[in-house]
Amino acid sequence: MSEGMGKVTCNLTISADGYSAGLNQSEERPFGDDGGDGWGDKLHAWYVEGAEENKAEIDAMMSATKAFIMGRNMFGPVRGEWDRQWNGWWGENPPYHAPVFVLTHYARDPQPMDGGTTFHFVTDGIESALAQARAAAGDGEIAIQGGATTINQYLAAGLIDELRLHIAPLTLGAGTRLFEGVPPLKLEQVTARATSMVTHVTYRVLR
Amino acid sequence: MSEGMGKVTCNLTISADGYSAGLNQSEERPFGDDGGDGWGDKLHAWYVEGAEENKAEIDAMMSATKAFIMGRNMFGPVRGEWDRQWNGWWGENPPYHAPVFVLTHYARDPQPMDGGTTFHFVTDGIESALAQARAAAGDGEIAIQGGATTINQYLAAGLIDELRLHIAPLTLGAGTRLFEGVPPLKLEQVTARATSMVTHVTYRVLR
Ligand SMILES: NC(=O)c1ccc[n+]([C@@H]2O[C@H](COP(=O)([O-])OP(=O)(O)OC[C@H]3O[C@@H](n4cnc5c(N)ncnc54)[C@H](OP(=O)(O)O)[C@@H]3O)[C@@H](O)[C@H]2O)c1
Ligand SMILES: NC(=O)c1ccc[n+]([C@@H]2O[C@H](COP(=O)([O-])OP(=O)(O)OC[C@H]3O[C@@H](n4cnc5c(N)ncnc54)[C@H](OP(=O)(O)O)[C@@H]3O)[C@@H](O)[C@H]2O)c1
Repeated sequence: MSEGMGKVTCNLTISADGYSAGLNQSEERPFGDDGGDGWGDKLHAWYVEGAEENKAEIDAMMSATKAFIMGRNMFGPVRGEWDRQWNGWWGENPPYHAPVFVLTHYARDPQPMDGGTTFHFVTDGIESALAQARAAAGDGEIAIQGGATTINQYLAAGLIDELRLHIAPLTLGAGTRLFEGVPPLKLEQVTARATSMVTHVTYRVLR
Repeated sequence: MSEGMGKVTCNLTISADGYSAGLNQSEERPFGDDGGDGWGDKLHAWYVEGAEENKAEIDAMMSATKAFIMGRNMFGPVRGEWDRQWNGWWGENPPYHAPVFVLTHYARDPQPMDGGTTFHFVTDGIESALAQARAAAGDGEIAIQGGATTINQYLAAGLIDELRLHIAPLTLGAGTRLFEGVPPLKLEQVTARATSMVTHVTYRVLR
């Protein structure tokens, strides 16, 4: 992060063994074998049932973010060519209210939505997506929204400033794992807070 | 855990990506490529420099434990046949003051030490080690002391009641990883506390 630039953050809910999604993702079970209903209900119980208790962390997720980056699998279940209309899991008015840069190998025109969200499809890699997000965000923050496959690339490239992990009380044993294939990182524990259903830890990634 | 039996606990310091030791363990660097001096200094900074701040968790590690179980690699660097005298890393008076059951494929006579510690070498598997520890501990607690290879076997067999993790602010990227190969677990977050250098989380393993 340079002077005058908003930091690059990343919020991720992980199991105690570091997975953010299980194996066998599908349209019917976007989180795959996630120890629950396939929609991340067990992983994200803290966010839903625990919304009040965890309000500070939930508010911090979005408030300062002016542009988002996500992987194509987080955006939806379509693989390969865009052979049908898919505009994300979030309905006509997605919760981002800002540009969202979706990494993919399959080009597609930008998709404007209600409420200020536009999905942009980026086929020339993570640095290009970050540069575009930066241009859109001005000096606001940029969030690498997930999944782990995308986050791990940004971590390996040293492009994430702050990692906000939400550790849920279960293990998945398999799936997409945060830090998989990422070279060793020096971290600074900035804050940590436990509530009844989750442990929140924020790390600054040291250079 | 049945009525009248002490619980089986496990304390483990892990990196944010779940490793309790790095690759390339040796006598000179027992923790291998651990992001520090090879003796776990970075992983265990909370335990050494942070001893005062983390006193509650440190005291809880040993106080109720009446027998210990550990893997042969945690006991020392000798591999294969016991071709030289090795009585652990801890000098004449080890900090256990109780029987310690060392899992190994290489038989060896029990090794009494000063201060009440005796190392027993168990070659017939994890269940036998636990039964022997149980007999020694009476209704006291038993600690599965490490490393991750040993803990993972006990977790997979459903034989650990309480997991006390101490999450240190670094990642290792490779090594022996807690939960590796362990089928999915349902956990209950019992307590969690963050201090300046570490996040402590205690999980009950649900059946
Ligand atoms: N626990 C949480 O907090 C959380 C948060 C977010 C997501 N999730 C879950 O995580 C899962 C998705 O995560 P994931 O790790 O499997 O995948 P992902 O990171 O969302 O998407 C990976 C896909 O994005 C495209 N992509 C990634 N990097 C690229 C690059 N450099 N260049 C071009 N294309 C690139 C590729 O798709 P193509 O090659 O097909 O284009 C790749 O297969 C979903 O189940 C989602 O629900 C969980
Ligand atoms: N971070 C922490 O809090 C912490 C705690 C403890 C240890 N550590 C570190 O972890 C490392 C050692 O851990 P590790 O996971 O590599 O190994 P480990 O679990 O200590 O020992 C594994 C070895 O124990 C023997 N063994 C294990 N299970 C057995 C079984 N069921 N039957 C017979 N023998 C069995 C085998 O040795 P043989 O076949 O050679 O007999 C096996 O190679 C060391 O670097 C240690 O310093 C870290």
